[in-house]
This record gives sequence, structure tokens and C-alpha cells, in this order.
Amino acid sequence: MDKRAFQFSPVQRYLDRIHEELLDLNDGAVADYIPELTRADPSWLGIAMVTVDGHVYQVGDSRQSFTIQSISKAITYGLALEDRGLDQVLGKVGVEPSGEAFNSISLEPGTGRPMNPMINAGAIATTGLIESKPDAPPMQRILEAFGRYTGRPMQIDETVYRSESDTGHRNRAIAHLLLGYGILDRTPEEVVDLYFRQCSILVTARDLAMIGACLANNGVNPVTGVVALQSRYVEKVLSVMSTCGMYDFSGAWIFNVGMPAKSGVGGGITAVLPGQFGLGVFSPRLDAKGNSVRGIEACKRLSKDFSLHLFHVARSTSATVMRQVYNCAKRTSRRRRSAAELAVLAEQGHRIRVYELQGELLFGSAESVGVEILSELARVDYLVIDLKRVIGMDQASILVLSELCMRIADQGKRLFFTDSKNLYRFRKHLQGNAYRGQEPGPLHFEDTDHAVEWCENQLIAQTDSTGADTSVADLNHQYLCAAMTHEELESLRHAGREREFKTGERIFDAGDRAESMFFILSGEVEVWIDTGAGQPLSHHLRLSSLGPGMVFGEVALVNEKRRTANVSAAMDTRCLELRFDAIPDALLVKMLMSMASHFANKIERDTQLIQQLA
Amino acid sequence: MDKRAFQFSPVQRYLDRIHEELLDLNDGAVADYIPELTRADPSWLGIAMVTVDGHVYQVGDSRQSFTIQSISKAITYGLALEDRGLDQVLGKVGVEPSGEAFNSISLEPGTGRPMNPMINAGAIATTGLIESKPDAPPMQRILEAFGRYTGRPMQIDETVYRSESDTGHRNRAIAHLLLGYGILDRTPEEVVDLYFRQCSILVTARDLAMIGACLANNGVNPVTGVVALQSRYVEKVLSVMSTCGMYDFSGAWIFNVGMPAKSGVGGGITAVLPGQFGLGVFSPRLDAKGNSVRGIEACKRLSKDFSLHLFHVARSTSATVMRQVYNCAKRTSRRRRSAAELAVLAEQGHRIRVYELQGELLFGSAESVGVEILSELARVDYLVIDLKRVIGMDQASILVLSELCMRIADQGKRLFFTDSKNLYRFRKHLQGNAYRGQEPGPLHFEDTDHAVEWCENQLIAQTDSTGADTSVADLNHQYLCAAMTHEELESLRHAGREREFKTGERIFDAGDRAESMFFILSGEVEVWIDTGAGQPLSHHLRLSSLGPGMVFGEVALVNEKRRTANVSAAMDTRCLELRFDAIPDALLVKMLMSMASHFANKIERDTQLIQQLA
Repeated sequence: MDKRAFQFSPVQRYLDRIHEELLDLNDGAVADYIPELTRADPSWLGIAMVTVDGHVYQVGDSRQSFTIQSISKAITYGLALEDRGLDQVLGKVGVEPSGEAFNSISLEPGTGRPMNPMINAGAIATTGLIESKPDAPPMQRILEAFGRYTGRPMQIDETVYRSESDTGHRNRAIAHLLLGYGILDRTPEEVVDLYFRQCSILVTARDLAMIGACLANNGVNPVTGVVALQSRYVEKVLSVMSTCGMYDFSGAWIFNVGMPAKSGVGGGITAVLPGQFGLGVFSPRLDAKGNSVRGIEACKRLSKDFSLHLFHVARSTSATVMRQVYNCAKRTSRRRRSAAELAVLAEQGHRIRVYELQGELLFGSAESVGVEILSELARVDYLVIDLKRVIGMDQASILVLSELCMRIADQGKRLFFTDSKNLYRFRKHLQGNAYRGQEPGPLHFEDTDHAVEWCENQLIAQTDSTGADTSVADLNHQYLCAAMTHEELESLRHAGREREFKTGERIFDAGDRAESMFFILSGEVEVWIDTGAGQPLSHHLRLSSLGPGMVFGEVALVNEKRRTANVSAAMDTRCLELRFDAIPDALLVKMLMSMASHFANKIERDTQLIQQLA
Repeated sequence: MDKRAFQFSPVQRYLDRIHEELLDLNDGAVADYIPELTRADPSWLGIAMVTVDGHVYQVGDSRQSFTIQSISKAITYGLALEDRGLDQVLGKVGVEPSGEAFNSISLEPGTGRPMNPMINAGAIATTGLIESKPDAPPMQRILEAFGRYTGRPMQIDETVYRSESDTGHRNRAIAHLLLGYGILDRTPEEVVDLYFRQCSILVTARDLAMIGACLANNGVNPVTGVVALQSRYVEKVLSVMSTCGMYDFSGAWIFNVGMPAKSGVGGGITAVLPGQFGLGVFSPRLDAKGNSVRGIEACKRLSKDFSLHLFHVARSTSATVMRQVYNCAKRTSRRRRSAAELAVLAEQGHRIRVYELQGELLFGSAESVGVEILSELARVDYLVIDLKRVIGMDQASILVLSELCMRIADQGKRLFFTDSKNLYRFRKHLQGNAYRGQEPGPLHFEDTDHAVEWCENQLIAQTDSTGADTSVADLNHQYLCAAMTHEELESLRHAGREREFKTGERIFDAGDRAESMFFILSGEVEVWIDTGAGQPLSHHLRLSSLGPGMVFGEVALVNEKRRTANVSAAMDTRCLELRFDAIPDALLVKMLMSMASHFANKIERDTQLIQQLA
């Protein structure tokens, strides 16, 4: 992507502007509770934003390292949830705001359970829950977890760590209290040491924005694609950030700023707008509550200037995910059909309906799509739901759509999903559940074209009188010969030459000189192109398949003198090859009339389709 | 819409199931703090859900009336914000969770400001802020506000009101304390009376779901379309519901259930999943904290079974809102062009690019669309952003897109928005801002076709050598005559008849017998259809406009024998009319060859376009 896109972006220019404005804000003081932190340059200011698309914006000292401090609490909490599960973690640490300062001890009377994981007591208890694996001690696992969020290997600032360790008497006291209540399984020394190291991990404002972006993006790092946190725990981490992340002004923070956030005394703040972006700000001057003064101000301005708020989300309706709906009376599959087959599809094709979805399916949009489908169900027998452009499905939408599958099967209708290969959980769920009551047969197709062709074949097979699927057809089935008398057909037959091709045999190649057309008498041919070098997977792209009663190569009569695609016999096939220069003059006008008429009708259908699509 | 769609809906069946299961849950007791409430039938259970699409699901006693009680606090808070603005309301009532029970007095030390509007003290202070208008006293205004949410006129249960009033000593005490602190402007008697009446408003579970749906739908009632609450205050009401709505277990509620909610001692609960739905549950048995036992359980099950959570939102990226992108080398406007003009567009059309958006634009998606546009900007001179399928734009996306306008104007490119008529705030903002630096000329077009035609005209006008825009063309410019010699053209001219039409004159009508074709020699004609009765607005739908060098009516030579559209002279126009039966045999084959070839090329382009669109 063109780098200038970001440079000229409205977002970059906005961040540049608030960076410049905030340089004038000099309130607050650098943290001094441990000596090492006082060495920070109070003038540092870095701002970064990373969107869920993985676009990175940064300005100022966004690459300056500093220690993560309390922001680590949110990440470690997520790792503890992954290690121990919800119940075990909730048994050790609560989720209620304490209404008190970050270093308050706030243990629940009786159980000694810290009120929440964002205060020191809760964070120490959380760190104590991180598992040790045979080949990965807890600290290594913590560093690796942080690295999944930031997308780079993480390191500890050893000087800050020693400084924390030398002065962390209150945290040691907390750990001993927790041990006394049975909250810790390990020695207080061990847990507190881990906690000090975790707080001393070096990050940049860019890292903080990337951490926020992972949480905004359902747990997936939007740049590397790595899962930083299992999606089911993302909402839990964001919940405690929203109710407890900003200590004793969490209510006002959500009310005014409306972004779950976490700050650290190193001067960093990570803020998250779920579904949209992560914001990282670094400026070492802190207010009395230990939050970065400029960091808070940056979050406030961004929220105010753009009216951003976590409760402002995209409505989840069919209008947001339904890309288009069409039926197959007007738009058939790419398979070329005989006139008789086309007549069946023109009359019956409305019984096949295709729904193209796009974007992210949630409960609301899945429900809305379901209603739209069910409300038309009486008029439809085959339904194809195209998921090619769907970028995600949550648990609710999976349940709603798989229930829908069963409702549709109950009604004796067939439903297919296409292009669902990236929606692994959905496919798995369907395999387990939605098949019940469904007739045997495919439920998924690679693409919509194949699914529609399958449905069309059913419709055609159900219509006995069409003469479709016969394995032989005479010239009088050919649209080009529609207006000819028996004698004219005979003279045409004599002008041509019968040819036979074995399965797989090439009839002609793209680029060949084109001097004849082929009427198919029996068998089947495939028209295809080679998608060429550089695309290792799909060399062979089928454009159409043709059967008895159809013609190919005829356009060259009026147009290009070279073949534009390859044609092969898909089974043993018999054709009448007719050289253009052998067509009797008297028949040429009739064939041209038929051809132009046929094309005009095709153009009319295509035009309707294009207007429908566009 | 087919009613059965809802009946068979997975959502209806799910609600039916939890309704049945919850009937077995008989914990808790009907409220007895006022005598009137004890008359409720403890077995009542009504559940309703209303989606942001306005789909209504209900089961059980969903139409049973009961008094709204504390759920009214959220609605009145919204009305107070509209009446007084944010600052004035925040001066009287805070937004921090109190961590205490609903009837706690919880006033801020010193100021006497109630901690939040969801406890009684805060709610009484809030009710005291509702303005009295000359023709609408506060109670009438409150009833009208509630009615905007529910979509029906609201009434008070007079018996419950009197019972509340007779026993509400604690609330009177609170009001007097508030008066003492200067929080109230009116007499405590007056304010408490309003408060008792507000709590005695009769609602059903369906009403509660509708209230929730308004909050989920950015303040707009999804069934009536009425604005229940100005959108900028919706996030404020949801914020206090999320941090304070469930009293002293708000932290756990957000963590576990993840839906802002409010309960009342009448047995009702309203829960909101922003962007998705409102849920209303009614069951009179309460737990010790005054919340409906079955109501809480219904919210919990729904949240758990579908993994619903307010932090689980659709990602806001270009993948969710970009419906398609195309350039006009392959897909031109509906205006029919001469061969010379088409050649210009084939070569230069890539300089016009159309972006079709759909769904709801938020900060994230607007940013992402902006990056996509800017990254290709060097290759494009005209940009058309089609907003026809956009159902909403928030403030952030308006700012980002209007900044984008200016960036594009800075680069000397032209940007147009089409079909933006429903996006009033966006248009207004652009008028005020984005025009700066933009060349004079249109910024909005009614539809994309007209915008693209405008851009095409610019491209064609810039290309001098094309011979386009000449006002006269001879037969040799006609594609049907491309292969003819001078002598053949002369014989064709003699076979035809020159005709002149005045501006506005009808050349033929749809349905007329078709026995000739018309070569345009000068002027311009319009092909159009009447969209017919029942559509009062757009009777005249232009299909195309044609100029010198083009032909119309020619398809009838090979096809229908009736006209399929009307053709009128758009200006004074001269044509050569050629009767089909007058075409010399020798020329017929040439014309049919040209026609079939032309159609074949058109089909190829259309096929490419369809594949691109599909």
C-alpha cells in the first residue's frame, strides 16, 4: 500500500495536531516512587493509533521505550484466564470496582479476595495464577504473551526491575496477606518477583496502541494475524478495564471518554475502542492519581472531537451485511445451457435464491438475515448463502444460522453455504448440529457458481418434458438453425464434417486461428482458460460447460479470428464442425439473424442483471 | 412481511424455550414495600425482544401491564440531559457507582450531589430537572417522552401512585436533604410527587424491550422511526446504566452478562445490546436486592447461550462497508456513446473510480475507506463515493470523510458524493467545510449514473482528437455500416428516408409495431420508459441518450416486432429512417455481421462486468 496514504490521512493529520497542542500541557510530575522512573524526560510525548485493519499512525516519541507498569495487569489477567479458566480466576480475584486508589489493598472481607485485577493486590494474585510449563517458566510465558500483542520480542528493563524490587515493600506485604488468605499457591517472594519483572517490561506508545488494537480486534493482532488473546476472554479483559481500569474515576471515565483504558505510572495509557482501534499514549508526567496528564488529555480530546464512545457501535442489521439477493430466473450459473434448459430456468429459476452476505455477522445481523430469508421461504426451494465476503461470525450468529438451517430443512427446502472455508467454527458447528433433518447431500460448496449449478440441475431434472440431459441432439436443437427447413439442415450437415473427441482431448486452444464452429451432437465440452503464471493454484478456470444442442466457436464467424479460450472434451464427444467458408450463402443470413437475435436477448438479460447488481 | 418468518425464527423458538424453562424458577418474593405491588400474580412471566430492525419477538405475559418503577430513572435522565445539557445535569447528579443499594442516600460529601442518577436520590434530583413548558407541564412531558420510546400513549396506575405517595417517607426525606444542598429548584413535595407518578407509569415487557431497542438503535424507535432520545445522549444513558444500573453488582453484571440494564421493583428489567436489540422481561418475584429473579436469569441465559456481550461488536473496517470498487474503463454510465467516445472511455475511464459503500460508517470504517482511496489516488482523477446503501454516519466518520474531501481537492482531483440525501448531517457539514479548496461545481449528485456521466463528459471534452461532440455524423460513422463501401452507403441512403424531429417530439412509443431503424445524423434522442401507475414520482425513467453516429430501433431487425421503449427527440434531431424490408440483400449480410459482432463484444464486456460485480 502506498505509504503516502497514511501520511495524507485525516487521522495522521489529526494526531499531528493534538501532539503539537499537548506539548504545551506541562502539568503533573514524573513518578518518583521508585528512583529509576525519575530519570524519564518529562517532555516526552508519543501518540500512536492502530486500527483493526492494522493501519498504524504514530507521532512524536512513539518509539521511545519505557516500562509498562500497571498496563501489564490487563494482559496478565487475560493470560491467567486462558491458563485457569473463568471460574478459577474469579475464585481468586473479583471484578467489582473498589472505588479506591491503585495501591489500596481492598480485599473482600472474609475471603481476602482482591476486589479486582486492576489494583495491585488483584494484579499480584493474577500473576500468581500464571502457569509454569515444562519448557516455559511463568516469566517466559508472560513475555511471550506480551509479544503476541505487540508483534515483537519483549524485554525487561533490568534497572527498573531492581529498583522496583528494592523498594516494593507494600507489594510484598500484600503478597503475604494473600498467602495468608490462601489466594497464592506459590511463595510471596516468587510471585512478587514475577510481578516486578512484568511491570518492568519495556514498551513504546506504538506497542500500547498495538495492544489496544488486539483487544479492539477480538483478540487478534491486526498486523501479524497472531491470536494475542482467545476471543472469549477479550470481553472479560475489556470489562474489568472499563469498570476498574481508571481506578476511582471509572464511572466518569466511561461516561466522558467512553473507551476502556488502562494506565501505568511509567507514563503510558492504552485505550480501546472495540471494533475500531487501539490508542497508545506515552508522556511521563502524572497527575495525583498516577495517570499520565497528557495521556488522559489525548484520550479526552480524541473522544470529544470525534464523538467516540464504546456505546456507539454499528447497528447490526441485514442492511449492513446483506450485499445482494437475487434469484436464478435472471442470473444463472456459468454453465451454458441448451435452449430447453434455459427455458426451464427462466420459468423455475426463481425457486433458487442466492443471498450474498458481507462483513461481520453478529446476533442482530444474523437474526435479521434469518427473518429476511424465512419471510420469502414459501416462494423458494433452494437457498444459497454466499459467505465469501464475511470476515467473521460470532457465536450468536453461528447459532442463529445453524438453527435457520434446521428450520429450512424442516420445510423440505435445501440450503447451501458457499465459500465458508475461513469460517472454521461455523463449519464445525454445522457438522455437529445442523445436518439433523437435512437430506443427504452437500451442505457446503466451494463457490456460489457450483452451488447454483447444482440447484439448476435439480430443477432441470425435475422437469421431464424438457428434453434436457438427453445425450444426443440433432442440428434442429441448435439456436443458430432454429429458422431452417429440413432441407436447409441437410445441406448444412453436408457442408460440415463430423468429428469425435475422447475424454480430455483438446478441441482447440486459445490463440488458434478460428475458421469453424462446432455443433455438439453428444457428450460434453468444457471451455476454460489458463489463469497463467504466478498463480500456482488455479491454473484451470472453467468458464462454462456445454452439452448436446449447443454450439461453440461460432462468435468467430462475425468477430475475432483467433480462439479466446481453450475447449476440451469433458467426456467422449461428437460434434459437427462447420467451416465458415463452407456455409451456403442462403443459410448465412438465417444464421446471422438467429445469432444477432440470440445476442440481443442475452444483452437484455445481462442489462437487467447489471442494473439489479449495481 | 410474512408473519410466519417471526414464528419460525430461531430467536422466537429460543425465547419460547427459555420462557418455558424459567416458569420452573420460583425463588424470590413479590415486592411488598408498598401494598399495591403485592397484588401482582407471582407466576407472571413475559419476555420480549425488539431488534434494531424493528422485529418484535414476545412470549408469555408480554402484554401484561405493571408499573415501571426504577426503570423510569434511565428515561427521565435522558430527558433531563436534553432539557438542561450535560454540564448542568452533571452539576446536580454524579455518574460514579455508589456500590450501595438502590435506596441508599449516597450524597457526595460537601456538595450533597447524589452519586448517580440510578439510585433514588439521584433519580429524584433528575426528575427535579425536567423543564416545565408553557403548554406542557413536566408530568405531561415525561409521559410524552416515555411514549416516544414505547410508540404508544402512556398512562399512570393511579392506585399504585397513591400507594407510593402514601408510603414514600424515605424519598420525601431525600428530597428535603437535596433541597438543603441546593440541588432542587422546586419544592420537595412537587418533585417527589412527579417522581412517584413517573414510577407508576404502566408498561409491558414489550414496552421495556422497545425502550431498550431505542437505546440500542442510537435513540431512534426502530418501529415508529421517532427519535426517542437525541443520539448524543444515548451513550450517556447507557454509560450510567452500565456502571450503576444494577446497583452494587454492576461490575459483575458487565463482566458476566455484558448488557447495560435497569431493573424496577415492579418486576421489570430492560437490557440493551447496543447496535443489536433491547430485551424486556417481566416477572414480579424479586431477589433481596430488588431485581426480578427470572428477569436476571433470562438476561444471564441469553448472554451465556449466545455469547452476547457489549464489547463484542462488529469490526469497523472497509471490509464491512466497501460494497464494491470499479473504474469506468469497463463500466460506463448509461449514456450511450459514439464509438469515438467509447474509445476515449476505454482508454481513460480508469481515471474515474466509483466506491460503493454500505451499512453504517463509524470512525474505523471511514478511516479504512479513506486509506483505501488515498492509496490509489495517484492513478485517479475523478472519484465518486456512492452512499446509497449507507444507513448512517456518526460524527467521527463525517469528520474523517470531509477531511478526505479536502485532501483530495488539495491534489487537484474531483470528488463527488451520490445519493447522500438521507445523510443530512453529513451534507450540512460538507457545505460548511469541505468546499474549501474545491473547484466550483457540484459536490453531490442525485445518483451515481449522473455523476459518472459528468466525469465521462469531462474526460471526453479533454480529449480533442476524438471527434466526439460533433453535431453531425454521416452514415459511415455507424457501426452497422462499418464494413460498407462508398457505393453501398449511397445505396443505403437511397433506400432510407430522412426525417426531422422537433425537441420533445415523440419518435415512437413502446408497443408500436417495429418495421424500421433510425440512424441519427444530428441532434440527440432519449430512450425512456414510463415506470407506470402507482409510482407518482418517477414516471419518466431515462434508459439512455444517443447522439449523432448512433442508431436506434435496429434490434427489431432480428428480434421483437414491437418497440420496447419510448424514444423522443431531446433536441432538434435529424435521422435516416430505414425500413427493414427496404434493405438491399447484398447489404443485409454485412449489417447482420456488424450487428452480431457488436453484440458479441458487448456481451463480453457485460460478462466481465457481471463477474466483477458478482
